[in-house]
Amino acid sequence: MSLATTWSKAMGIDVPIVNAPMGGAAGARLAAAVSEAGGLGMVGMGSSATPEQLRRELADLAKPSRPFGIGLVHWVMTERPDLFDIALEARPALLSVSFGDDWAWVRRAHDVGVTVATQVATVGDALRAAEAGVDVLVARGAEAGGHGRPALGTLPLLTQVLDAVELPVLAAGGVASPRGLAAVLAAGAAAAWLGTVFTTCVEASTPAAARDRLLAANGENTMLTSEFDIRAGYRWPADVPERVLTDENGAATPVNAGQGVGMVNQSLTVAETMSRLCWGAEALLRRWS
Amino acid sequence: MSLATTWSKAMGIDVPIVNAPMGGAAGARLAAAVSEAGGLGMVGMGSSATPEQLRRELADLAKPSRPFGIGLVHWVMTERPDLFDIALEARPALLSVSFGDDWAWVRRAHDVGVTVATQVATVGDALRAAEAGVDVLVARGAEAGGHGRPALGTLPLLTQVLDAVELPVLAAGGVASPRGLAAVLAAGAAAAWLGTVFTTCVEASTPAAARDRLLAANGENTMLTSEFDIRAGYRWPADVPERVLTDENGAATPVNAGQGVGMVNQSLTVAETMSRLCWGAEALLRRWS
Repeated sequence: MSLATTWSKAMGIDVPIVNAPMGGAAGARLAAAVSEAGGLGMVGMGSSATPEQLRRELADLAKPSRPFGIGLVHWVMTERPDLFDIALEARPALLSVSFGDDWAWVRRAHDVGVTVATQVATVGDALRAAEAGVDVLVARGAEAGGHGRPALGTLPLLTQVLDAVELPVLAAGGVASPRGLAAVLAAGAAAAWLGTVFTTCVEASTPAAARDRLLAANGENTMLTSEFDIRAGYRWPADVPERVLTDENGAATPVNAGQGVGMVNQSLTVAETMSRLCWGAEALLRRWS
Repeated sequence: MSLATTWSKAMGIDVPIVNAPMGGAAGARLAAAVSEAGGLGMVGMGSSATPEQLRRELADLAKPSRPFGIGLVHWVMTERPDLFDIALEARPALLSVSFGDDWAWVRRAHDVGVTVATQVATVGDALRAAEAGVDVLVARGAEAGGHGRPALGTLPLLTQVLDAVELPVLAAGGVASPRGLAAVLAAGAAAAWLGTVFTTCVEASTPAAARDRLLAANGENTMLTSEFDIRAGYRWPADVPERVLTDENGAATPVNAGQGVGMVNQSLTVAETMSRLCWGAEALLRRWS
C-alpha cells in the first residue's frame, strides 16, 4: 500500500505531505528536506518578507531535484510586488498566496504555467477561490498554528469543502501524528498541509528557544492573538489572528503553534518525521482493507 | 467490508455510531431508531431532566431488542439522585455521565455490571477519567454542538487521546457526513458520537422551528454561549458553555448545533441517515484497500 493520492501523483511527489510555508520556520533547508523525503517542500515568506530574503532562499534551492513550492501572504506581496515576480520566475510546482480578496495574481501565475493554491476557512471562501480559478485549496481549520481565520474546526471544514468543490483540497490544522494523517486522507484530502510538526525539525529555521517551548507544550497551551502583529505594525486583516503558544500563566508568547503541538515531543529530521507519519498512517488505513 | 470496530463488536452493535444523548432531542424514539438501525441509541437527559421524564422515556423503550444507552449530566444527577438510580435499574449497555469531577458513580455502575463513558476535552481529562475507572471515553472537540468544554478541535483531541490511553475512544464534534465518519474511524476511534446530524431526523424530539433553522444553517452559523444557562438558572460549570446556532445578526439562539450543521440539509429518518453515513464511509475507506 502507498499513501499516494491522485493529486500527489499528478504533482510528481511520492507522499501526500506538504509543509506549510511558515515565515521564520520554512526556509530553503526545510523545504528541500521535505521535497527530498518525497513530499512537497514549501519555502514560506511571512509578515516581514523581503525580495532579498526570497532570492536568498531560492538560491539555496538552486536546481532542486524534486518539486518544490513557495508560499506568500497577499498583503505582504501587495506591499512588495517583487516578491510575486521572483516567486513566479522560480517556476514553483505550487504557488500559494493567502489572505487577500483580489485574485489578479491567479491569472498571472497561470499565464506562466504555475499551479496555485490558497487557504480557505469556510465553504464560501472555497467557492470564491474556485470561481477565481485557484487550482488547489488548503482547508485550514481553526486548530492550526500561525495566521488564519478561525471559522471552523479542521474536520467539519475539510469534509464540507471536499463535498462543495471538485478541486483537490489539502487539510491543515491539528494534524501532527499518523492518526491525523490517516484521518484526513480517509476523508478524501489530496494531501496534508503540516505546520507545527515541522517547526521542531532539525532543518527548520525555528530559533532554539522557541523549539524547546514547542517540544514541551501541551495541545491546550495555545491561543489566538493579534497582539504581536499590532505591536509590529503588520497589516494582517482584523479577522486573521495568529495561534501562538501560551506561557505558564496562559499569556500569549510570540511562538506560533497549532493544537497539534502536544503530539510534537522530539526534534527529529524531516525524513524521520515523514517516515514515522507515513508508516503509521499506512498501518491505520491498511486495517480497512 | 464493514465499518465494525473491536468496540462495536464487543458492544453487540452492527455499526460504530452512537447518538449523543442530547437533552430535548434524544428521547426514546430517537434512541430506539438508532439502535434498530444497528448503532447504539442513547436516551439523553439534559439540564432540566426529571426522574419522571427519564422513567417515561425508558418505559417507551421497554424490552428493546437491541442494546441502548443513557446519558446524564453530572450536576443534574447530583441535584436529582433518582436519575442515576433509575438509569442503573434500566441496565443500559452504556451509561454516560459527564461534566463532573466526583467519580463515585463509576463504582456504583460497575457494581451492577454497567459499562460507563464520560466526555473528555483534553488529554489530562482522559487520563483522569481512565484513572477513575471509566470504560469508554468520548473525545469531544470544540466543534461539537450543545454543552462541552471547548479546549481542542476534534482532530487533535481525538488523535492525541487515542495515543494517550488504552481505552476505546468515541469521536464527537463536527462529524456530520460520510467523510467525517471515515476520518475518525481511520484515526482509530471506536465509534463516532453524533449529535447535530440526528437533531433533524424524523425521530428526534427537536421542535419543528428549531429543525427548520438547523436545516437552513451554514457551519459558520454557530457560537459558544452561557447566556441561556444563566437565564434559566442552570448550574453548568463556568468552563462548559453550549454551542448554539446564531441568527441572521450573528446573535445566539437557543438551538444547540455543532459546526457540522452545514452538512445537515435534509430531514431524513434515522435509518436513512445512518445508511447514507455508513455506505459513504465504507466507500471512502475501501479506496485504501
